[in-house]
Amino acid sequence: MVRLKNVTWLLVTAAVAWEAGKPLVMEEVEVAPPQKHEVRIKVHFTSLCHTDVCFWEAKGQTPLFPRIFGHEAGGVVESVGEGVTDLQSGDHVLTIFTGECGNCRHCHSEESNMCDLLRINTDRGGMIHDGESRFSTNGKPIHHFLGTSTFSEFTVVHSGQVAKINPEAPLDKVCIVSCGLSTGLGATLNVAKPKRGQSVAIFGLGAVGLAAAEGARISGAGRIIGVDLNPNRFEEAKKFGVTEFVNPREHDKPVQQVIIEMTDGGVDRSVECTGSVQAMIQAFECVHEGWGVAVLVGVPRQDDAFRTHPMNFLNERTLKGSFFGNYKPKTDIPGVVEKYMNKELDLDKFITHAVPFSKINEAFDYMSKGECIRCVIDMGA
Amino acid sequence: MVRLKNVTWLLVTAAVAWEAGKPLVMEEVEVAPPQKHEVRIKVHFTSLCHTDVCFWEAKGQTPLFPRIFGHEAGGVVESVGEGVTDLQSGDHVLTIFTGECGNCRHCHSEESNMCDLLRINTDRGGMIHDGESRFSTNGKPIHHFLGTSTFSEFTVVHSGQVAKINPEAPLDKVCIVSCGLSTGLGATLNVAKPKRGQSVAIFGLGAVGLAAAEGARISGAGRIIGVDLNPNRFEEAKKFGVTEFVNPREHDKPVQQVIIEMTDGGVDRSVECTGSVQAMIQAFECVHEGWGVAVLVGVPRQDDAFRTHPMNFLNERTLKGSFFGNYKPKTDIPGVVEKYMNKELDLDKFITHAVPFSKINEAFDYMSKGECIRCVIDMGA
Ligand SMILES: NC(=O)c1ccc[n+]([C@@H]2O[C@H](COP(=O)([O-])OP(=O)(O)OC[C@H]3O[C@@H](n4cnc5c(N)ncnc54)[C@H](O)[C@@H]3O)[C@@H](O)[C@H]2O)c1
Ligand SMILES: NC(=O)c1ccc[n+]([C@@H]2O[C@H](COP(=O)([O-])OP(=O)(O)OC[C@H]3O[C@@H](n4cnc5c(N)ncnc54)[C@H](O)[C@@H]3O)[C@@H](O)[C@H]2O)c1
Ligand SMILES: [Zn+2]
Ligand SMILES: [Zn+2]
Ligand SMILES: [Zn+2]
Ligand SMILES: [Zn+2]
Repeated sequence: MVRLKNVTWLLVTAAVAWEAGKPLVMEEVEVAPPQKHEVRIKVHFTSLCHTDVCFWEAKGQTPLFPRIFGHEAGGVVESVGEGVTDLQSGDHVLTIFTGECGNCRHCHSEESNMCDLLRINTDRGGMIHDGESRFSTNGKPIHHFLGTSTFSEFTVVHSGQVAKINPEAPLDKVCIVSCGLSTGLGATLNVAKPKRGQSVAIFGLGAVGLAAAEGARISGAGRIIGVDLNPNRFEEAKKFGVTEFVNPREHDKPVQQVIIEMTDGGVDRSVECTGSVQAMIQAFECVHEGWGVAVLVGVPRQDDAFRTHPMNFLNERTLKGSFFGNYKPKTDIPGVVEKYMNKELDLDKFITHAVPFSKINEAFDYMSKGECIRCVIDMGA
Repeated sequence: MVRLKNVTWLLVTAAVAWEAGKPLVMEEVEVAPPQKHEVRIKVHFTSLCHTDVCFWEAKGQTPLFPRIFGHEAGGVVESVGEGVTDLQSGDHVLTIFTGECGNCRHCHSEESNMCDLLRINTDRGGMIHDGESRFSTNGKPIHHFLGTSTFSEFTVVHSGQVAKINPEAPLDKVCIVSCGLSTGLGATLNVAKPKRGQSVAIFGLGAVGLAAAEGARISGAGRIIGVDLNPNRFEEAKKFGVTEFVNPREHDKPVQQVIIEMTDGGVDRSVECTGSVQAMIQAFECVHEGWGVAVLVGVPRQDDAFRTHPMNFLNERTLKGSFFGNYKPKTDIPGVVEKYMNKELDLDKFITHAVPFSKINEAFDYMSKGECIRCVIDMGA
C-alpha cells in the first residue's frame, strides 16, 4: 500500500472480477478518498457468501463487470468523509450489504430495517453520493458490489452501511456476522421468537439455516428439526443442535404432513432458508394451529407464487418474512458481536475454511462444491 | 313456563326451524336438565347473526333439521349439572359458539383460543357429553346449533361455552358481544394491534368489519379506510369512525394499488372481514413493507386459494388469521363487557333493530335484506 496525494488516494491490491464466472485477478487498484457520508476502511478479514458467487456467476443477474465483490468483512476505519460524525479513524467496524440512514420512515420505525436510502441494491455499481466508483485501475473505473466491495485491501463504504463494533472482537471471526449469520440468527431470535422448550423446524441447512438453528439453540428450543433435500447436510447440522432430520425425498407424503405427525399437530415455529417456494409453503403449513409462526428468509424466483388455503391462516397461524434477520445494521449488529464476546453465540463452528487473500479463488471453489459453510479470507496474509 | 319433575324438565317456548329457509315456528319444547359439565340458562336477549341465517338457509351446509338456532345471547343461569363449579344459579352469562375447556393444549397456550374439545362445530346437533339433544317436542328430539340454541326461552349449554359477566351489564346490549362484535373487535385489538395514529384498512363493512373499525377507533388509529363493494355501507360506517372509503368497483387499478397510493406506501394494518379470497389477498398486499400487519377474519370457501408473490412476505409484512378475535371465551369475554361498562366500547350503534321473540322471523327478514347490523330479540316480550 502506497499513500498518494497526502492520504487521499491509495494504491492497493484488490481481487477484480473482469468477467462472469472467470477467476478473480489480483490487481493494483486506486481507491479514491471517501466523499460525503463515506468512510474508507482497511479490510482485515472478509468471508465469502453465496450472494457473491451468485452475482459473480451472473446467471439470471444483471452482469456488471469489472467489479470488486465481497460484503462480509471486518476492518478498521482509515479515514472519513465530510459529514461523518459517528465514526473515526481507528474504529473497528463491520461492513453491511444493507444500510441504516437513520432518517427515513423505516429507520424511525422500531420494526423495520428496510431503509429507504440504503436498502440492498444489487444493480448499483457506484456510490450513492455521486453515482461514481471509488475504484479504478489504469484510469478505468471498477464497479462496486452492494456498496461494500470488501475483496480489496481498502474499500469505501457509505457510513450508514458501517457498524462500529467492540475493538476487542477478533475480526477473523466476527467478519461472518456481516450477512448470512445475522440473517438466519435474527430470523429465529427476532422474528420466529421460539419460547424455551418449543419445537422449531429449519428448512434448508446451508449457512443461513444453520444460523437459524443456532438461534433456536440459544432460545432453548426443545426440538430442532432440520429439513433438507441434501442428506450430506445432516452430519454437519448436528454440531448446530439440530436433533432430528427430515429429507422430503424419503417420504411418500408431503413433508408438512410428516412434520405434523412427528410433533402431534405441528411445530411451534419454522424458519425457511432455502429460496424454494415449495419449502416456503411447507414451512408455513407445518406449524401448529393456534400459535404457530413461520418465517420466510430464502429469496424466491421472480415468477414464484406462494399458495395455500386461507383456512390455514384462519386457524391462527402467522406468516412473516424477514430481511437480514430484522437487524438494523448500525443499531443492532454491534449487539450480535457482543453475544459472541460473552459466549452466548458460537461463531467458530461456522468457519470451516480459511485462505490468504492471494488464494481467494480457492474460496470460490470450496463454496461452489458445497464443502464449506464459511471460508474466511485473510487480507493481510 | 311450567316446572315438571321437581325442577328437572322445563316446558318452554322455542322458535324451531323445521325446514331449510322456512319461517321458524313457535313450539312448546321440553328442555332436559343439564347433564355433566352443562348449565341450563334462561335466555333474556339474543341477537341474530349471519351464521344463523346461513345454516338456516343450508345452502352448501349440511342440513340438520328440526333445529333451534341462535348463538349470541345474554341470560341467567337457572341450574347447573354435575361437575360445574365455576357457575351457579343466578349468574349473568353470555353463551359462546366456541368454548374453553381449560385443559387442552390450546387452553393452556397464552396465544390460542381454539380449544380442542369445544371448538366450533357446525355439524354437531347433540351435546358433547352423550351426543343427545336436550330439546324435544312430542317426544321428537330437536337438534342443537353451535351448542348454544338461544332461540328458546331456556337452553342447555356446556359450561365451557358460558362466560360469566358483570351482573349489572344490560343483557339487551351485551348479548351482541357473544360473537360478531368480539370477532371484529378482537381481530383489531388482539391481533392487528394498531398503534396510536396508525392507518388501518377494513375490508368489508358488515357487523364484523364495523366491530373491527370500532377496535381501530379505540386504538386511536389515525386513518380508518373502509373498503366495500356495496356503497350503501359507507353512510352507516361513518358512525364507526371510518374516515375514508374505497369501492373497488370504482377504480381501474387493483384496490391494493389504490390504497398504497392513498397512504404513501401502504396502510400500517388491515383487517379483512368479507370472506372473499380476493379481498384477503388485497388486504395483505396493501399493508406497508417493513411493519405492515394484515389479519384475515372472513370465512373462505372450500376451494379458495390464497396466492401472492413470496417477496411480499420477505419485505417484512405479516399475515395472520384470527378466530373469534383471539378471545378465550370464558377468560376474556367478561373483559369485553367491562369495556362497554366503562364506556370505552360503544355497543349501542351496532343495535339497529329490536323485535319481541314472537316476531323473530322479522329479524331474519331485516338481516336478509342487509338492512340491519344487529337485531336484538327480546325473549321476555
Ligand atoms: N432474507 C435475507 O435477508 C437473506 C440474506 C441472505 C441469504 N438469503 C437467502 O437465504 C437462502 C439460504 O441461503 P444459504 O446461503 O444458506 O444457501 P445454501 O444454498 O447454502 O442452502 C440452502 C439449502 O436449502 C436446501 N434446499 C433447497 N431446496 C429445498 C427444499 N425444497 N426443501 C428442503 N431443503 C431445500 C439445499 O439443499 C441447501 O442445503 C437463500 O435463498 C438466500 O438467497 C436471504
Ligand atoms: N373468524 C371468525 O371467527 C368469524 C366469526 C364470525 C364471522 N366471520 C366471518 O366474517 C365475515 C364477515 O361477517 P359479517 O357478518 O360482517 O358479513 P356481512 O355479509 O355483513 O359483511 C361482509 C361485507 O363484505 C363486503 N364484501 C364482500 N366481498 C367483498 C370484496 N371482495 N371487497 C370488499 N368488500 C366485500 C360485502 O359487501 C359486505 O358488506 C364472514 O366471512 C363471516 O363468515 C368470521
Ligand atoms: Zn433509512
Ligand atoms: Zn451475504
Ligand atoms: Zn380446551
Ligand atoms: Zn355469529
